[in-house]
Amino acid sequence: MQTRITELFGIKYPIIQGGMHYVGFAELAAAVSNAGGLGIITGLTQKTPADLANEIARCKDMTDKPFGVNLTFLPTFEEPPYDGYIEAIIAGGVKIVETAGRNPEPYLPVLKDAGVKVIHKCTSVRHSLKAEKIGCDAVSVDGFECGGHPGEDDIPNMILLPRAAQELSIPFVASGGIGNAKQLVAAIALGADGINMGTRFIATQEAPVHQNVKDAILAATELDTRLIMRPLRNTERVLTNPAVEKVIDIEREKGSDIKIDDIYDLVAGIFPKVMLDGDMAAGAWSCGMVAGLINDVPTCQDLLDGMMGEAQDIIRGKLSAALLD
Amino acid sequence: MQTRITELFGIKYPIIQGGMHYVGFAELAAAVSNAGGLGIITGLTQKTPADLANEIARCKDMTDKPFGVNLTFLPTFEEPPYDGYIEAIIAGGVKIVETAGRNPEPYLPVLKDAGVKVIHKCTSVRHSLKAEKIGCDAVSVDGFECGGHPGEDDIPNMILLPRAAQELSIPFVASGGIGNAKQLVAAIALGADGINMGTRFIATQEAPVHQNVKDAILAATELDTRLIMRPLRNTERVLTNPAVEKVIDIEREKGSDIKIDDIYDLVAGIFPKVMLDGDMAAGAWSCGMVAGLINDVPTCQDLLDGMMGEAQDIIRGKLSAALLD
Repeated sequence: MQTRITELFGIKYPIIQGGMHYVGFAELAAAVSNAGGLGIITGLTQKTPADLANEIARCKDMTDKPFGVNLTFLPTFEEPPYDGYIEAIIAGGVKIVETAGRNPEPYLPVLKDAGVKVIHKCTSVRHSLKAEKIGCDAVSVDGFECGGHPGEDDIPNMILLPRAAQELSIPFVASGGIGNAKQLVAAIALGADGINMGTRFIATQEAPVHQNVKDAILAATELDTRLIMRPLRNTERVLTNPAVEKVIDIEREKGSDIKIDDIYDLVAGIFPKVMLDGDMAAGAWSCGMVAGLINDVPTCQDLLDGMMGEAQDIIRGKLSAALLD
Repeated sequence: MQTRITELFGIKYPIIQGGMHYVGFAELAAAVSNAGGLGIITGLTQKTPADLANEIARCKDMTDKPFGVNLTFLPTFEEPPYDGYIEAIIAGGVKIVETAGRNPEPYLPVLKDAGVKVIHKCTSVRHSLKAEKIGCDAVSVDGFECGGHPGEDDIPNMILLPRAAQELSIPFVASGGIGNAKQLVAAIALGADGINMGTRFIATQEAPVHQNVKDAILAATELDTRLIMRPLRNTERVLTNPAVEKVIDIEREKGSDIKIDDIYDLVAGIFPKVMLDGDMAAGAWSCGMVAGLINDVPTCQDLLDGMMGEAQDIIRGKLSAALLD
């Protein structure tokens, strides 16, 4: 298995586990990396840089394979101590960072000087080109299908990936909506050099989240996600529940006058309650449309080996029969 | 090249030209069929059943390959004489009908009795299963990306196609957002047995539409389509222009009180003005996101041969390198 992404990151399979708040702990990152993919610790889930340093050390105890750290630059009330987190990453010997949200340019020099490869998550071609221009090593191209923040353009991966392929020189992975072998093959065909999976990795044995979260993903269909916070231009795709429907009602009622305070209690700070305590009604939590395609909770090893095997069968079987002579 | 769709319809390539109002004339249908795909005459673009009979005869003069007729059952003020159109189809010896819109069940017995194969266009898994249950031979699974009517679920093809593959027994083609070889390979990998293209076929030499329409598609990016008529639950994806922006303003202003009369002059009856006269400001006309991927106006033969050749290169090249040993 060889793509520009496996070469860039020194991994066996072109499969990355994207950063996820209160999911991307050392246990999951190590499991994904041990299975041949690239595991990612979610930096800001760790309350302080010292906590992140500890989480990195825990991950190194569990795997000798490459893993990365996600750093998300999203609008928050209080700016996290990014410099401190980056120090922890570099001191911990982590050589791969996934950035997301705002432009990571201010932090690139220190990362690059330390030999860290940076993959930036983008929801548009123009942001992907900007990431390439400022020196990112790769981009994670995130379609409308994705859980979490799909941006405001609503371009699905069937369009976004081949558009990225037309424009980008650096390697990119398909992110958003991906969870099985069919989609892995499709993503590579569309021009990507690999895939990023989020929601699919929550529904694995090793994901250190409450069983209720995994059960909710298994129960969901592709029709069960909702977009919230669009009026705030901070759109997020979440699994629907009564709290989410309440957010939608408030958004409808307030219209363009809405403020974050109107929905704050239903969207902010609820991740530990949902992910760790299994309080599924606590608020709105990120979940991709791919939930509708997920019907099992395998180990990361079984998931990745199974996907790669099935991908090979699709290429040698159906694709060859349909499109080769 | 062999899939369940090429076998069902007796065609060389698993590529269908979907019904398009004031585009699907005999010239285009014949060109697509002669190129190895399945051309489709748009039934309701012909004002009367006699006109459709004439258009079918014209098409038969231009090709000896199989072609089909599209019959769309959409909300209209006056019910078209569907029985008459179906008589023209059967009397004309057409053996393939693409249905769209409402449930085609009332018309299936007469079509099936005449040996006509029916492919129904659906925007959801549940409608696809219904089409299978009532006896349709195939379905055209239409994702959120599509021009025209994507339904109200907003599920893109990267999710919708593998979901359809999980559920359907009859063959299906991927429709919506498809315009190049990368996407053809992706669609087959995702479980489809072929593809349906609309917007891509407008930008061909043989499409009998005004050059302004082709130029507008060439100029468009993937960000240039808009969804209108959502408040009427008759959502349509169109290329943006001042008339479309006016529709959107009216929809925003009227909210849930909107009536079709409020926007009628900007959306109804404008297709001949746009497609034939090239009056691009006349109103809102259907166009898929794939416009952002279209940069040339080839003949149908060059388009299809080129796509099939490139699809083979993708399988033998990039996919094999990335996912086979």
